[in-house]
Amino acid sequence: MISLDSLMAKDLVKQALIEDIGHGDLTTDSFIDPEKQIIASYNVREDGIIAGLSLLKTIFSFLDAEIKIETFIKDGNKIKAGQKIAVISGNARAILAGERVSLNFLQRMSAIATLTNKYQEAIKPYKAKVCDTRKSCPNFRVFEKYSVGIGGGSPHRFGLYDAVMIKDNHIEITGSIKEAVKVARSKIPHTVKIEVETENLDQVKEAFEAGADIILLDNMPVEMMKNAVDFIDDRVIIEASGAISLENINKSASSGVNYISTSSITAKAGVLDIGLDI
Amino acid sequence: MISLDSLMAKDLVKQALIEDIGHGDLTTDSFIDPEKQIIASYNVREDGIIAGLSLLKTIFSFLDAEIKIETFIKDGNKIKAGQKIAVISGNARAILAGERVSLNFLQRMSAIATLTNKYQEAIKPYKAKVCDTRKSCPNFRVFEKYSVGIGGGSPHRFGLYDAVMIKDNHIEITGSIKEAVKVARSKIPHTVKIEVETENLDQVKEAFEAGADIILLDNMPVEMMKNAVDFIDDRVIIEASGAISLENINKSASSGVNYISTSSITAKAGVLDIGLDI
Amino acid sequence: MISLDSLMAKDLVKQALIEDIGHGDLTTDSFIDPEKQIIASYNVREDGIIAGLSLLKTIFSFLDAEIKIETFIKDGNKIKAGQKIAVISGNARAILAGERVSLNFLQRMSAIATLTNKYQEAIKPYKAKVCDTRKSCPNFRVFEKYSVGIGGGSPHRFGLYDAVMIKDNHIEITGSIKEAVKVARSKIPHTVKIEVETENLDQVKEAFEAGADIILLDNMPVEMMKNAVDFIDDRVIIEASGAISLENINKSASSGVNYISTSSITAKAGVLDIGLDI
Amino acid sequence: MISLDSLMAKDLVKQALIEDIGHGDLTTDSFIDPEKQIIASYNVREDGIIAGLSLLKTIFSFLDAEIKIETFIKDGNKIKAGQKIAVISGNARAILAGERVSLNFLQRMSAIATLTNKYQEAIKPYKAKVCDTRKSCPNFRVFEKYSVGIGGGSPHRFGLYDAVMIKDNHIEITGSIKEAVKVARSKIPHTVKIEVETENLDQVKEAFEAGADIILLDNMPVEMMKNAVDFIDDRVIIEASGAISLENINKSASSGVNYISTSSITAKAGVLDIGLDI
Amino acid sequence: MISLDSLMAKDLVKQALIEDIGHGDLTTDSFIDPEKQIIASYNVREDGIIAGLSLLKTIFSFLDAEIKIETFIKDGNKIKAGQKIAVISGNARAILAGERVSLNFLQRMSAIATLTNKYQEAIKPYKAKVCDTRKSCPNFRVFEKYSVGIGGGSPHRFGLYDAVMIKDNHIEITGSIKEAVKVARSKIPHTVKIEVETENLDQVKEAFEAGADIILLDNMPVEMMKNAVDFIDDRVIIEASGAISLENINKSASSGVNYISTSSITAKAGVLDIGLDI
Amino acid sequence: MISLDSLMAKDLVKQALIEDIGHGDLTTDSFIDPEKQIIASYNVREDGIIAGLSLLKTIFSFLDAEIKIETFIKDGNKIKAGQKIAVISGNARAILAGERVSLNFLQRMSAIATLTNKYQEAIKPYKAKVCDTRKSCPNFRVFEKYSVGIGGGSPHRFGLYDAVMIKDNHIEITGSIKEAVKVARSKIPHTVKIEVETENLDQVKEAFEAGADIILLDNMPVEMMKNAVDFIDDRVIIEASGAISLENINKSASSGVNYISTSSITAKAGVLDIGLDI
Repeated sequence: MISLDSLMAKDLVKQALIEDIGHGDLTTDSFIDPEKQIIASYNVREDGIIAGLSLLKTIFSFLDAEIKIETFIKDGNKIKAGQKIAVISGNARAILAGERVSLNFLQRMSAIATLTNKYQEAIKPYKAKVCDTRKSCPNFRVFEKYSVGIGGGSPHRFGLYDAVMIKDNHIEITGSIKEAVKVARSKIPHTVKIEVETENLDQVKEAFEAGADIILLDNMPVEMMKNAVDFIDDRVIIEASGAISLENINKSASSGVNYISTSSITAKAGVLDIGLDI
Repeated sequence: MISLDSLMAKDLVKQALIEDIGHGDLTTDSFIDPEKQIIASYNVREDGIIAGLSLLKTIFSFLDAEIKIETFIKDGNKIKAGQKIAVISGNARAILAGERVSLNFLQRMSAIATLTNKYQEAIKPYKAKVCDTRKSCPNFRVFEKYSVGIGGGSPHRFGLYDAVMIKDNHIEITGSIKEAVKVARSKIPHTVKIEVETENLDQVKEAFEAGADIILLDNMPVEMMKNAVDFIDDRVIIEASGAISLENINKSASSGVNYISTSSITAKAGVLDIGLDI
Repeated sequence: MISLDSLMAKDLVKQALIEDIGHGDLTTDSFIDPEKQIIASYNVREDGIIAGLSLLKTIFSFLDAEIKIETFIKDGNKIKAGQKIAVISGNARAILAGERVSLNFLQRMSAIATLTNKYQEAIKPYKAKVCDTRKSCPNFRVFEKYSVGIGGGSPHRFGLYDAVMIKDNHIEITGSIKEAVKVARSKIPHTVKIEVETENLDQVKEAFEAGADIILLDNMPVEMMKNAVDFIDDRVIIEASGAISLENINKSASSGVNYISTSSITAKAGVLDIGLDI
Repeated sequence: MISLDSLMAKDLVKQALIEDIGHGDLTTDSFIDPEKQIIASYNVREDGIIAGLSLLKTIFSFLDAEIKIETFIKDGNKIKAGQKIAVISGNARAILAGERVSLNFLQRMSAIATLTNKYQEAIKPYKAKVCDTRKSCPNFRVFEKYSVGIGGGSPHRFGLYDAVMIKDNHIEITGSIKEAVKVARSKIPHTVKIEVETENLDQVKEAFEAGADIILLDNMPVEMMKNAVDFIDDRVIIEASGAISLENINKSASSGVNYISTSSITAKAGVLDIGLDI
Repeated sequence: MISLDSLMAKDLVKQALIEDIGHGDLTTDSFIDPEKQIIASYNVREDGIIAGLSLLKTIFSFLDAEIKIETFIKDGNKIKAGQKIAVISGNARAILAGERVSLNFLQRMSAIATLTNKYQEAIKPYKAKVCDTRKSCPNFRVFEKYSVGIGGGSPHRFGLYDAVMIKDNHIEITGSIKEAVKVARSKIPHTVKIEVETENLDQVKEAFEAGADIILLDNMPVEMMKNAVDFIDDRVIIEASGAISLENINKSASSGVNYISTSSITAKAGVLDIGLDI
Repeated sequence: MISLDSLMAKDLVKQALIEDIGHGDLTTDSFIDPEKQIIASYNVREDGIIAGLSLLKTIFSFLDAEIKIETFIKDGNKIKAGQKIAVISGNARAILAGERVSLNFLQRMSAIATLTNKYQEAIKPYKAKVCDTRKSCPNFRVFEKYSVGIGGGSPHRFGLYDAVMIKDNHIEITGSIKEAVKVARSKIPHTVKIEVETENLDQVKEAFEAGADIILLDNMPVEMMKNAVDFIDDRVIIEASGAISLENINKSASSGVNYISTSSITAKAGVLDIGLDI
């Protein structure tokens, strides 16, 4: 699972604080005594799945080392409108300065976890797991992929550097799927998987015989997907993609594929309404 | 208007490229000759408003100095499904490595411009401009605010450092709106505006008399908003906020307010379908 | 007020430490036992106004988490030659390594606060506040603007991004002050103020009617400034600028303007003599 | 293959230049006219395999945009003592300032390529490829792994984030290899491979049945390795490790394993003698 | 000489631009067509010595690659009020956005060069060179030290890492100057010089015998300084310091010392009036 | 001595952690409970000299503030195969995530200290100290130079900015060593030493008379070196270089030179076997 504890994630959090606070929170600094202490609650205003709670500690530790966070739930838990999920106490200036950034993280991440969960629930009877794509918001990918995992999905490759995806133009260049897989295999670390995008059953067979680690069924009719699943018979991973929606994911899953990837779970998640009440 | 040409924006673009490409594009580097040249087109697959076109040059200049971008439209133009909006030519490895990041920027920014435009069109008969909030995606605010402007809206303050927003708890601390404005005014640069959040007409009057630069009508019924507008009579700026949607923004605008702020135009924009065809 | 607690300010402090210490303090490391503890005092050697005291904690926290700082006064307090203002105790290596940087901040910032205060005292009978300009030392602006505030002045806009300043060439481009203000207003966030530079009374009137938030009287004779003040009659902010010195600021202030901006308070402040005695 | 063209690699190169040049090359700036042009040759003084040639362009582009580099060979080519491999021409100050850093990269990278190649040549009759480990020099991993590839080896996983390695303590925690693989598989992206470290044939079988993507034979006698290879029969990748040297790698390879990983190829490579002659 | 061409200096310039421009130059972007070209002149408004001219190219290359700078003089040249020193032409937005930062560098650096030159001229009959100290403006040291050199002075050590300065407390710790020099010498690179601060002739002799590379005469009467100079007889470098002013530096120099260090040349330089006329 | 406590060193450590851990330690996070505590020992598996122990604290403080490190020896101590040198206890995830990076630092640094020590021991009867060169691993120089000092050697200049090295081409440009030294001296801070590379006795004499601070005898026969040493008679520092090995360094040292510089002590050190046992 993608980690929120990595130094990489923490640097991104710090950067987000600088983006919002810049050379100072003019409002807070005008009104709030630098020594004032407050207590405030993070309250949920919309049902969903929580994600990103541990960032509260990260965010506020950048602003004041003494701030205390008490959380009542864990990432992945279901939350209900009206539910108090965390209490924060300590220096008022730091809490007010970090409020918006903390909510921006929580709201977006929880929305992604929530929507991922809806997709995952929609295919409950099947073994498929929903996963994301590289169509992420620039500089927010760590948090998106973490949230997909929290929502019950499974993140896809992180970037261009940790898996190979062979598409039609690569096949064209090399002449055949077999040759394409061979070329890639000869150039990449043996620790890296190769996924081959296929459009019909012949290609599925060719990809399997070529030794693909993952076979992507792109925009296939369900029947064809079923045939592919039958043919592969659990020997390699099968992923489906193409115009997946909450309405039609069930159909794709019914084919028996292992993974269904869609950018919808991140790109269309929006925000989940969470507030900080002082 | 927020600038995409600033060094700040360019550093964020570079960071997004590193996020996706990391230590190398394993797929592209496996198949594509380092000297190979290609031509590809950015094509729109969904109607909307384009935003972020100038980033194409920024993105690819980080990857290869020789890449050429030709654009056929300008940010803010309406685009139609099927329309070719730009042609990119040059080193194939660089184009393929930057493809996803370029689309991630274009798709999100154009979606925000498009949704902002819908909100703005919805209130066409009125003078109000729609504006965003600080509820932005961490480390993506520059691009969100730019896109709001492109869509015909008007960005709100950038962060905590370039405007003051007086809310109920500040009023409580100081005793009155009058005192709160006075306190803030005495502490901030004279180049910074003060906005006061109000909940009823008495507060509107008090805020006006206190010398607020902007008066925010928060969650007021339309009738009360009209009364506020009548009372203010164009002497200071009036902004409305609170549960604004594409359906109800018309009603808020009919009150005669100057600005209507809503996080919907950024948080719910999703992505606009744009692709790169090689 | 500009904040010294922001992450932006703290990063600049860290950078200044790296500038001075680089790969190590060769002298200190040659002589001082890594475990040795010392106590030292920050003593003032010249009368003035102190600014930057809270940076002591920031500076030394980067060098050793256990160092204790006790301060006897607060930023903005008058200090006298011979006065002990702070005591620092803890790891000797860290204290000696950070000594120079801490003094470099304190001396420059206190000098700015002191000079600002002299300018402000010189216009005591009048309502005007002295303010700075963008003519700051590169990468030291946060600290200059903070110190101006501490000295009793009021910082001007932080940079090119948080206020608009319309000058003669902009007026020329658009044809009139009225048109220039209109153009700017249509392009910037409603949270941003517009200042118009004027050279005579006609321009002052035109700027007022155009809706300028701040009118800058640039290099005007005092009589003209008085006429401008009378005309404006507290309806918008009036700022004066142009060859302001400690000797002549009184005259400008007597005109009744609200702000007088001058780069002298920062550019000519020099350093205030403060030392660390071990 | 790891890329030297990535922004990540380029940032590391820039950092290395700052490390060496700091606030200026005192010697060069004392003697060399800022306009002076020179031509110089990169000459090999020891037989080996060249790696890192494209960095010459990267390095000097940071110092002077006009410098020209002409290379006569390509990375991976054999080089002989006395051979001229590249000519650099342009601004003398920039060439002299960048000389040492360029050689530091070339010498270390070529040494790694050369040593990797010796290991690879030593097992020529067999199918095994030699690969590296995570025992790299801090902040130099990109360049080490690239050079391993150039030398004919194959880089192992880049870091902790792009492959899973299950060791005895993980097996202990979960109770069995089967359970360990299942746990890992349920938590990681489906695009990530799982390698299981084994110490005997039973573990090899268990790992295979558990669905490991790669089975690591750690410190096994050759006979046992052969049995493992026979058992696995090319169904998954087999890697060997443990006290590999140029002398004994032949024996390991004779077992028929697919990969042999050893830190020797990077940690013991030293430098290959290459110089810049002006 | 400290270099303005180093990557370190360039990064500081970029940072200064971000400090001023942030997310955009609201004024310029409101009025100036993105394609508009202008020509403007850097004109001197006060006699002095110019320093920092090459930064113009650095500064504007960050803003627009096509901008042309033509300079009519070189760093170190005398400049007269009214003199045109450079012409800049190209994209108007970039020139206006970078104007203030370019002047902030030029004005401060030229003021330091000018004041340094005055100090240096004041001691013309003598061999002494004036030099600076570590009492620099945080994060501006590279530019201060460069300017001291341009003004005819000679920069002192850059920071704590490139020379050793033995003071009374170090002597106290080790028991004697002799021991102190010995201790330091045993711990530092042989490429690093040791300077010993002395307060009387005995200490001067002791420092010389101990093998100090530089002997600092701190706050000594001129007679004592002469005696020291006579005693040393050019065998090592002698530096004087302590309350040096433009009025009294002549006296110190008359003693025959090699260097006179003073923070005045940087800390009290202020700015030299240079403007950009469009 | 180069410091491991500098902010510069700490930033490099943090960067190395990000290099290895990236967006998360997939293995550790799959198996280890986030709250689990462990104790582990750093054990030596090969005789040598330890260097870098204090980095353990630095490394793990980036990963978990509560981790405790107990060390049983100090940098520079001899270590024996089988010896336990430190115990680490605390959060298991943090310890496992930082294990490899901590060993990478310790193994390389201790190897350099060990090899330096062997060279130094080899010349025990003589006064010479072994020192390193600028032929270091990019971005690892701080740690190499620190380790050389720990091994009993003495680091050479850090980079191009803290000492001058005059070589034949500089002498050619200026016409003579005398002129070259004069030119350099006139341009560099008086706190910076000048080293002159010489090839024969005439040059040695010329360099001495020119006032060189350090004279480098490059590739001279031992007899010539002895003559140089006799001539110089301890009046300036003499350094020898050129094809130094553990076998022949004794001969060079017997000449009586003060320093012998060689890249071997860093470039050929490899790694010292140290492990972490849980």
